[in-house]
Amino acid sequence: MRYLTGEPHQLAGNRSDFAGYRPQHFLFSLEQGVATLTLNRAERKNPLTFDSYAELRDLFRALAYASDVKAIVVTGAGENFCSGGDVHDIIGPLTKLDMPGLLAFTRMTGDLVKAMRACPQPVVAAIDGICAGAGAILALASDIRYGTARSKTAFLFTRVGLAGCDMGACALLPRVIGQGRAAELLYTGRSLGGEEAERWGFFNRVCAPESVLAEAQAFAGALAAGPTFAHGMTKKMLQQEWNMGVDEAIEAEAQAQAICMATNDFHRAYHAFVAKEKPQFEGD
Amino acid sequence: MRYLTGEPHQLAGNRSDFAGYRPQHFLFSLEQGVATLTLNRAERKNPLTFDSYAELRDLFRALAYASDVKAIVVTGAGENFCSGGDVHDIIGPLTKLDMPGLLAFTRMTGDLVKAMRACPQPVVAAIDGICAGAGAILALASDIRYGTARSKTAFLFTRVGLAGCDMGACALLPRVIGQGRAAELLYTGRSLGGEEAERWGFFNRVCAPESVLAEAQAFAGALAAGPTFAHGMTKKMLQQEWNMGVDEAIEAEAQAQAICMATNDFHRAYHAFVAKEKPQFEGD
Amino acid sequence: MRYLTGEPHQLAGNRSDFAGYRPQHFLFSLEQGVATLTLNRAERKNPLTFDSYAELRDLFRALAYASDVKAIVVTGAGENFCSGGDVHDIIGPLTKLDMPGLLAFTRMTGDLVKAMRACPQPVVAAIDGICAGAGAILALASDIRYGTARSKTAFLFTRVGLAGCDMGACALLPRVIGQGRAAELLYTGRSLGGEEAERWGFFNRVCAPESVLAEAQAFAGALAAGPTFAHGMTKKMLQQEWNMGVDEAIEAEAQAQAICMATNDFHRAYHAFVAKEKPQFEGD
Repeated sequence: MRYLTGEPHQLAGNRSDFAGYRPQHFLFSLEQGVATLTLNRAERKNPLTFDSYAELRDLFRALAYASDVKAIVVTGAGENFCSGGDVHDIIGPLTKLDMPGLLAFTRMTGDLVKAMRACPQPVVAAIDGICAGAGAILALASDIRYGTARSKTAFLFTRVGLAGCDMGACALLPRVIGQGRAAELLYTGRSLGGEEAERWGFFNRVCAPESVLAEAQAFAGALAAGPTFAHGMTKKMLQQEWNMGVDEAIEAEAQAQAICMATNDFHRAYHAFVAKEKPQFEGD
Repeated sequence: MRYLTGEPHQLAGNRSDFAGYRPQHFLFSLEQGVATLTLNRAERKNPLTFDSYAELRDLFRALAYASDVKAIVVTGAGENFCSGGDVHDIIGPLTKLDMPGLLAFTRMTGDLVKAMRACPQPVVAAIDGICAGAGAILALASDIRYGTARSKTAFLFTRVGLAGCDMGACALLPRVIGQGRAAELLYTGRSLGGEEAERWGFFNRVCAPESVLAEAQAFAGALAAGPTFAHGMTKKMLQQEWNMGVDEAIEAEAQAQAICMATNDFHRAYHAFVAKEKPQFEGD
Repeated sequence: MRYLTGEPHQLAGNRSDFAGYRPQHFLFSLEQGVATLTLNRAERKNPLTFDSYAELRDLFRALAYASDVKAIVVTGAGENFCSGGDVHDIIGPLTKLDMPGLLAFTRMTGDLVKAMRACPQPVVAAIDGICAGAGAILALASDIRYGTARSKTAFLFTRVGLAGCDMGACALLPRVIGQGRAAELLYTGRSLGGEEAERWGFFNRVCAPESVLAEAQAFAGALAAGPTFAHGMTKKMLQQEWNMGVDEAIEAEAQAQAICMATNDFHRAYHAFVAKEKPQFEGD
C-alpha cells in the first residue's frame, strides 16, 4: 500500500500559486489568501480514507511553500465536520495488515498532523455536527477552533479497541484542555458538546451553525491581512518551544523576534503609526 | 528506617490474582476488575503513615503485573479523603532525621506517585471532605477525579514550612489546572472547593457525597469493561510524551497505536461493528 | 547601545538591604518584606523604555541576593498597568538597528523575564487598565495576577508587524491559559477583559480598581510572612521542572523538599502545631 495520491508534481517545489489546485478527495477554494478545505462525503459525515489522508498530508506539506495561501480553514460539508477513519474503508483493511503495514498507516496519519503543525499558515477549524476520531484530531491539530453548540467532538479510538494515543492526541490535547479533562476524553471516547468545549478552551468560539464557517473564514481572513511572515513565526515558535526550558525558550524568541524586526511589515507598522494610519501588511 | 511493609512475596512476580490481597494499612476490595482502595483511619481523617505510604507504593508497583485488576478507585472512609502525612506519626519523626534519612523519606513518597503513574490501570479518585497535603497529591496523581461540592483540596505543605514541590506537585498540578492557578495553590496552601475544582479542571465531576464513590466505581467499571490493554497504552503515552516535542510524540503514538491495532480487541470491535453488535473487549 | 543603567554597584554582591534602593525609572517601596514596583509614567500609560527595561532587569537580578525582600508586587500608576514598549522611544529606534543591535535588544528584554523567573521571591502583578505588549509579558512573567474587570490585557505584537513569540510568550502563555486560547491571543493581539482573564486562569482574582493594589499587597504580605525559603524553592521547582519528565520531576522534588525539611521553619511549624500555636516563620 503506497500512500501517494493526487498530483505530486503539481504540489512540488517552490510553488507560488494554489489558485488552480484541485484535490481529488476534498474541496479546495482560495479567496483573498484564505484556503478553505472542505471534506465532502456528506452522506457519510465526511469520513477519511487512505487516499484523503494522503492527499491532505501532501497538501499541507506543499503549503509550506505557498506564496498565495496565508491562512487555512478546515471544515466539513453537510452540517458535519468529519466522522474519522471510515470503518469499511479503513478499519476493515487495517485488521488484515501486518505490523509494518500498520506502522506505515499510523505514521502516515501522524504525518498529516506533523504537516499541519509545520506549515506556516494558521489553521482554523470550523466544526459543526460530528467531529470524531481522526476528525477530532484534525480539529485538535488546528490552531484555532470555532464550533457550534450542537457539535459533538469525540476522541473515540477506545470504542474500536484502540488507545487514545492517536496522531499526537496524548501530547496535544492535555495542553489545550488540561491533563485531567484530556485523560477523561481519551479513556472514554465520550462526546464533548460545544458549550463545554468552549468552557474548557477546546473551542475558541461557539457560533450558530449557519455562520460558523463564515466566522472562521472571517477570522482567517483577518490573519491573512496581517503580518503573515510574523504569524508563521508565531506558529513555528509555539511548536518549537513545546518542550524547551523557559530560559531556552526566551533565547529562541529573542532570535525569532529579531528576525521579525528586520521585516518590512515591522517598518510599515511603525511608519503607519507615526502617520496615524492603519498599517498595510504584505507578509515580507 | 526501612520502607518495606506488607507481604512482599505475595505481591512479587507475575501475579495474576489480587482477589486474596489483604493490605495491613488500608482496605482493598476487588469487584469485576475494579479494585477499590479505602484509606480507613476515619477518626483522624485518614492520614498517611510511613507504613501506609510504603504499602501503597508496594501495591501500585505490584499492580503493574496484575491480570485481574483493570481499573482502580482510591477513596477514604468516613466522609473524608485523606488528611495527608500525619503530624505526630510523620512530621514529628521527620524533624529528627538526618539528610540521608529525609531524602529516603521524600524518595519513598515520590515512589508512590511514580508507581501510580506507571501502573497500566487508570486510577479514579473519589474525594469527599478533607483532601490535604499528601492526600491532595494522591488525588493529583490519579487519572480522573470525582469530588463533592463540600470537599476541600489543599496542597498545604507551606503551612508546615515546606515547599509546594512535594511528590511531583510542581510538575503535575500546572498541567491539570494551569500554571497561574497551580502557583496560587502551591504558594498559599489554600483550600480549593469542589465547584471551583470542577471549573478549573481538577475535578472531572462534582457528585453528591452519598454517590461519589459509586459514581467513581461505575466510571472505573466502564473502563474495566473496555479495551484495557489500550487503556494501559493511553496511560503510558500520557506519561511518556510529557516532555517530548510534538513530532517525537506523534512518532511515539504511531508505534503505540500500531501495537494496539495488532490486538484482538481491535479485531473484535471491527467484527462487532460489521455485525451491528456491541463489542465485547477482553483486554488482549 | 549599552543596556546598563542605574547603580550597578549598589545592587551587586550579597546585598542585605533594599530599603534605600531608589531606581531612576520607576518607583520602589518596601514594607514588611513586600517590595512594590510601580511603573510611573502615568500620562503615557506607563510605557517601557530601553532604560526602564534595563533597570528592571538589574533590579530583579539583584533581588536574587536580597535578604529583606520576601515578595514583590508589580503595578502601574494612574489606573493603567503598562502600555508596553514605547512607540517613539523603542519602536522607532529599533527600525534603525542592524541585526546584532536587534538581537541585543530582544535578549535584553528576554533577560528581564529570565530574571523575574529566577529570583526567589513570588511576584504578584496588580493590573488595572491597559496591560499591553511588553506590559502583558510583565504580567505573564509574574507568579500571580490580580486584575480588574475593566483591565485589558493584549499581547499586541502582531499589531506592529511582529510575532507573538516575544520574551517567552509562546512558552509561558499556553501553560497558563491553554494552547488554543494562547494561540488566539498571540495571533490576533486582541484584548482579554478581566472577567474572561479570570475564567481562563490568567487572573487569579478580579478586584475592584480601588482595591486591586492593596489586595495584591496583602496577598504578597501573607507570602512574605510565610516560610519564604520554601516559597523560593516552590518557585525554583516550578521553573526547573518545566520540561522534565514526570519521574525526573519527582526525584527533583524529593531532593528539594528534603532540603526544606532541614530548615528551621519546618521545625518551627511542627513545634507550633504540637503547642497548638500559630507558627512564626523566619525564612531560614
